[in-house]
Amino acid sequence: MKKTVYMEEMDAFTYRDKLKKDAVVFVPVGALEQHGSHMAMCVDAALTKAMAGATAEALVEEGVLEGIVSAPINYGYRSQQRSGGGFHLSGTTSLSGQTLIMLARDIVYNIIVHGARKIVFMNGHYENYQFIFEGAELALEKARANGIDDVKIQLLSYWDFVDDQTIAELYPDGFTGWDLEHAGVMETSLMLLFYPDLVDMDAIDGELYTGLPAELPNYDVLPIIADYTPPSGCLSHPGASSREKGVILRDVAVKNMVEAIKKEFV
Amino acid sequence: MKKTVYMEEMDAFTYRDKLKKDAVVFVPVGALEQHGSHMAMCVDAALTKAMAGATAEALVEEGVLEGIVSAPINYGYRSQQRSGGGFHLSGTTSLSGQTLIMLARDIVYNIIVHGARKIVFMNGHYENYQFIFEGAELALEKARANGIDDVKIQLLSYWDFVDDQTIAELYPDGFTGWDLEHAGVMETSLMLLFYPDLVDMDAIDGELYTGLPAELPNYDVLPIIADYTPPSGCLSHPGASSREKGVILRDVAVKNMVEAIKKEFV
Amino acid sequence: MKKTVYMEEMDAFTYRDKLKKDAVVFVPVGALEQHGSHMAMCVDAALTKAMAGATAEALVEEGVLEGIVSAPINYGYRSQQRSGGGFHLSGTTSLSGQTLIMLARDIVYNIIVHGARKIVFMNGHYENYQFIFEGAELALEKARANGIDDVKIQLLSYWDFVDDQTIAELYPDGFTGWDLEHAGVMETSLMLLFYPDLVDMDAIDGELYTGLPAELPNYDVLPIIADYTPPSGCLSHPGASSREKGVILRDVAVKNMVEAIKKEFV
Amino acid sequence: MKKTVYMEEMDAFTYRDKLKKDAVVFVPVGALEQHGSHMAMCVDAALTKAMAGATAEALVEEGVLEGIVSAPINYGYRSQQRSGGGFHLSGTTSLSGQTLIMLARDIVYNIIVHGARKIVFMNGHYENYQFIFEGAELALEKARANGIDDVKIQLLSYWDFVDDQTIAELYPDGFTGWDLEHAGVMETSLMLLFYPDLVDMDAIDGELYTGLPAELPNYDVLPIIADYTPPSGCLSHPGASSREKGVILRDVAVKNMVEAIKKEFV
Amino acid sequence: MKKTVYMEEMDAFTYRDKLKKDAVVFVPVGALEQHGSHMAMCVDAALTKAMAGATAEALVEEGVLEGIVSAPINYGYRSQQRSGGGFHLSGTTSLSGQTLIMLARDIVYNIIVHGARKIVFMNGHYENYQFIFEGAELALEKARANGIDDVKIQLLSYWDFVDDQTIAELYPDGFTGWDLEHAGVMETSLMLLFYPDLVDMDAIDGELYTGLPAELPNYDVLPIIADYTPPSGCLSHPGASSREKGVILRDVAVKNMVEAIKKEFV
Amino acid sequence: MKKTVYMEEMDAFTYRDKLKKDAVVFVPVGALEQHGSHMAMCVDAALTKAMAGATAEALVEEGVLEGIVSAPINYGYRSQQRSGGGFHLSGTTSLSGQTLIMLARDIVYNIIVHGARKIVFMNGHYENYQFIFEGAELALEKARANGIDDVKIQLLSYWDFVDDQTIAELYPDGFTGWDLEHAGVMETSLMLLFYPDLVDMDAIDGELYTGLPAELPNYDVLPIIADYTPPSGCLSHPGASSREKGVILRDVAVKNMVEAIKKEFV
Repeated sequence: MKKTVYMEEMDAFTYRDKLKKDAVVFVPVGALEQHGSHMAMCVDAALTKAMAGATAEALVEEGVLEGIVSAPINYGYRSQQRSGGGFHLSGTTSLSGQTLIMLARDIVYNIIVHGARKIVFMNGHYENYQFIFEGAELALEKARANGIDDVKIQLLSYWDFVDDQTIAELYPDGFTGWDLEHAGVMETSLMLLFYPDLVDMDAIDGELYTGLPAELPNYDVLPIIADYTPPSGCLSHPGASSREKGVILRDVAVKNMVEAIKKEFV
Repeated sequence: MKKTVYMEEMDAFTYRDKLKKDAVVFVPVGALEQHGSHMAMCVDAALTKAMAGATAEALVEEGVLEGIVSAPINYGYRSQQRSGGGFHLSGTTSLSGQTLIMLARDIVYNIIVHGARKIVFMNGHYENYQFIFEGAELALEKARANGIDDVKIQLLSYWDFVDDQTIAELYPDGFTGWDLEHAGVMETSLMLLFYPDLVDMDAIDGELYTGLPAELPNYDVLPIIADYTPPSGCLSHPGASSREKGVILRDVAVKNMVEAIKKEFV
Repeated sequence: MKKTVYMEEMDAFTYRDKLKKDAVVFVPVGALEQHGSHMAMCVDAALTKAMAGATAEALVEEGVLEGIVSAPINYGYRSQQRSGGGFHLSGTTSLSGQTLIMLARDIVYNIIVHGARKIVFMNGHYENYQFIFEGAELALEKARANGIDDVKIQLLSYWDFVDDQTIAELYPDGFTGWDLEHAGVMETSLMLLFYPDLVDMDAIDGELYTGLPAELPNYDVLPIIADYTPPSGCLSHPGASSREKGVILRDVAVKNMVEAIKKEFV
Repeated sequence: MKKTVYMEEMDAFTYRDKLKKDAVVFVPVGALEQHGSHMAMCVDAALTKAMAGATAEALVEEGVLEGIVSAPINYGYRSQQRSGGGFHLSGTTSLSGQTLIMLARDIVYNIIVHGARKIVFMNGHYENYQFIFEGAELALEKARANGIDDVKIQLLSYWDFVDDQTIAELYPDGFTGWDLEHAGVMETSLMLLFYPDLVDMDAIDGELYTGLPAELPNYDVLPIIADYTPPSGCLSHPGASSREKGVILRDVAVKNMVEAIKKEFV
Repeated sequence: MKKTVYMEEMDAFTYRDKLKKDAVVFVPVGALEQHGSHMAMCVDAALTKAMAGATAEALVEEGVLEGIVSAPINYGYRSQQRSGGGFHLSGTTSLSGQTLIMLARDIVYNIIVHGARKIVFMNGHYENYQFIFEGAELALEKARANGIDDVKIQLLSYWDFVDDQTIAELYPDGFTGWDLEHAGVMETSLMLLFYPDLVDMDAIDGELYTGLPAELPNYDVLPIIADYTPPSGCLSHPGASSREKGVILRDVAVKNMVEAIKKEFV
Repeated sequence: MKKTVYMEEMDAFTYRDKLKKDAVVFVPVGALEQHGSHMAMCVDAALTKAMAGATAEALVEEGVLEGIVSAPINYGYRSQQRSGGGFHLSGTTSLSGQTLIMLARDIVYNIIVHGARKIVFMNGHYENYQFIFEGAELALEKARANGIDDVKIQLLSYWDFVDDQTIAELYPDGFTGWDLEHAGVMETSLMLLFYPDLVDMDAIDGELYTGLPAELPNYDVLPIIADYTPPSGCLSHPGASSREKGVILRDVAVKNMVEAIKKEFV
């Protein structure tokens, strides 16, 4: 089998060897969620897996830390209207809070038991963060109860590592915040880079892609008021996306994540 | 985007169109688990996704039913020694029972809310079955409480659709049961068919691949007694595997699953 | 009070004395479930208690290990159509998965805290197994978190200890598998042995007892399709049952369980 | 099979016939708990089953209501020091609160689904009450969510139906309250009536049976302070127990429970 | 900031100083529940907080133990008809059993982690007791799993510390038990003492305040039968309440609680 | 009793009258958490209660909607280092995710059953939001299962209603974001307005109040690295706080919340 950072594509013996070298294990967390008519529904899971992979490879390349990317959590917390269009939209397949907490806890706990002591929980679906934070803490509590107290978990969302200068460059008309980036320029550009087959820029349909960027209230309403979400389900317009922007976004985010990981784990 | 049965690679508008045609939605359930030194750890999830895909495509081809394959549940229940080598083995990443129940419940319930009324829960990790059965029942209970009572869920394990004649052909020296097929001829042949890059027949190492087929007691012991599992982690010998056998296995299982699905849903 | 292996009929001081001798504690797990018109609904719980009692007594008689049988778990997991006729049948009283997991966990954990280090979880209701496995593992995790790490739990289903030769003898017309033995020859014969008052062979009614052995699909459907279950609720015909067969079944299963227990605990 | 009110000893067809006559279904809830050196540990479960049986039979005899007694919940909530000596005592096998809630919920919900609309939850272990109340309410909530809203559940503890006059008669030296009656005159007398083989009045040992009635503080302490419990584990002295008192206690309690049940269900 | 025993009104540095002196930490548990037309709905939470405060202050004054009162649990378990009028009454806002268990567990566990080793769980809503007992035990289990085993928790209901002599004095016409004291003389008198603004003795309306003391059956019924609760929602008549009685009740209960606390913690 | 919007200080009959007028019911959610040495630990709960009260009173004054403020949830989710200093700090008393979800669900569901159809969930502790969102959704699911489908819940954090102009005015040296406002100018100014006794500006100690505003990484680490939190536990400097700023903050936030509430509920 070819060399890989992806645990799913690795045999168990190779995995054990890497762990013996104190590898950082990444757990990507995404979602299965509508992303307009121009992108496939795997975006959050697929991008986070790819970003974790690129980060792990960069670490390995630097020769300082070994890296492994676990299977992504491919379903995420209920999409919220202000960051994902809302969980009422058909196609968006959401976990309840307790399910995601337990899923995160079980996966992290198992990886600890395998021997990992350096874990990066990489989030790629805005709504997940608090639930995976809770799951990570519960995994640590369980580990401590079993006598393991030397684990360190870093939790992050990859877009937080795109710096202000890059944002200024890529969003010359102003940046409306990562929450509104659902199916917008960042996600679409990264998809054009990593999974061009799962994007169809021609499916950005003028009639559908109206009301963008979405102007959403500074509160939530339940049950969701469908009219508040733009008809495409996107929250900002992906028209200015390009593979080139994808390269820039990946490069800056990976570079900064590598720095952050080295700060905590070296 | 290309035509696909895979929900992950489908945009939400296409998905909704298919559901309007009363598509059968498949939920593949696998695991992330050691499969010896000759296969990657994604086997159970990857094969079930592929088998569900092949079945969905066969249904579509027949023109009787539309088919969609949801994102696989890529982590499974604790590997047991008599069917997966045991959850003590590093690399095997296991969910607790309650987590898998809730995960199955949430996913199926969401798909029902999307509009699906025909669901096939396809299992590819022996140990999962009871927990996804429970999850499916809880999803139905929740659907009924919300006034939806016309859903039908079919639960199956794909290997149960390999018929006795095929077994006799492929296992001329005798068949030791699906539980012992962990990393054996069936899984390895199907991987050679669907994901040849994730198999390395040269990594079937004589020294490691001893004690096969495993002779395990007719009971379980907890904590697991490591010595009961053969050193490779496989439970039967994959040496006789081939892509050709993979084709035969896929073809017979898909054909029989298509029949079973049509029996219940047409 | 008379000498007994049954914890329910034992005073606490006697129990403590036995535990000081490192007694094996059996936890029988059954169900309250329809068993046709010819048997009472306690079959799974009552037989498992009796088989555990016979095994404990055999151990004591051999003088190698002391034995105690805890109160049976007298309700079990949802009866499934392929092994118990289905949980839609009135009379069948089923626990949800999470309830059975927690019940198993609590009971085993308490017995550990009492001082037991040798535990046999004996199952008598096909559908229970995975849930009590999970409960046993959770009890061990809790014990370890409290500093107890010398417990061993053996999990088994009593019918797995009936050997092939006995099966060949008792089922001269062919054996259809333990799953279909619901209310069939094995259970009925053992009831005739242990609880003859709770069997009425004259209530095996020709009109009702049709379609046996049941021919069930190799998958499950939810909600259950009532027509798939034979009208009696039995899955195989109990007509050939006899007390004598009960004696044979008990003797061989007990003998083999005693061996298995000694293998693990002596 | 003989006529019986006990569901465990009834075949499913007979059960269904009784339910069609709108039978009251009793669910006895007990415990597996130390009861000194003079009684077996099943007291709470066994007595509650017997009292429910006697009440059901009395109802049937009167010809007003049909009666069925479900399998007892034979494990109960953690024994508390002020009513059961404490859950620290070996032999006392306790469920956690959530487990008992879910167990009660599942059993009651199933009985409702079977068709029962008149349910009596009879408690025989002081500590259980709040948890089975919660379980009963959750079962009703689930039933309502499934469109069933004509169920009535009566919850009671059988000793509350022993009237003051009987208490005055049976406890000429003063009555210290039902909480202290753990393994005292009431339970012992009823055991002498229903299960004389499980009582050994000669095992009331002077040296052990000191400090009775127990003088316990008007609060609880956790972890339990073992010294607060008398050495026998009994909370009041059983010496004055007799089968005759058992008859009186049963008769008065059954008579009053029958009245209460008729008040609610006729 | 002024000196206070109330944690809510204390800054964190002061809190830490007090804990270093091994302060007793009180956790008051109340409810938000109807208390007739003459009292506000916070009674159970407000009184328990006040009684805990008075007890903590008395301890501090004696100079033997430092005292802190945590924020009250201001919602309680479902009001039951025999002790609180029933959870069907609008205004009464009830937690389910599992929620209260987890809330109690989390709060106590946190206080232990802060460094507290002496904890008093003070109950002021009859129905809560079993659930906070369970929560306290779960907190201890978690603490032990984390290596902390020197915590002691005392659980009590403040009214249990009003002695018989006081009862005889304050209830010259006979005392009907603490369960019926819901919105009666004790609670009203204490409210007149601690929160006179939240009582309106003129709102004791003759027409509404009938059927008191309530005569309730010696069992519960679910769903609640509204007619069993007196129209005011009170279970005994508050007419004879006075601030003076409030002083007496507070003084005797505090004095006796101080004794009990010193007995356990000094 | 005096007129009040606070449910805790209201009798049940008055509450029912208000609900008949279709009152908006506010549920304030706070925390019990360290806020430096200059403020009491109740800040988040106390301020949210006060802001909800002011908003309810403003609504009532306008005469368009009746308003009620339920008892605050006075414990919140684990304080995170980037928004509250971290849950490792003694005094900070945190709920686990599942507990807060269930607490929010139970309270909202009860209020719905009381008759409320207009609910505002007002958050005052940054970390709570996702968990109360989940609790609100679960309450709605339960309400729908019970046939209630006309409820609307608005979820908001009060600080999101301070507009940019006010921020520019109050933070002339630049605003570092609401997450860093823990114990900073906003909270301190509002406390000076609502609870001046619980603030001590003289306790802002130069030596302790260093490293402000905190410079925290753009990720979390678990277990928490204590050094990342400034010694005071505050995340920005409260020195510029004043009662006047409190008035401005309250007025603008209340005005904007009133608009938002009217938009949704009138």
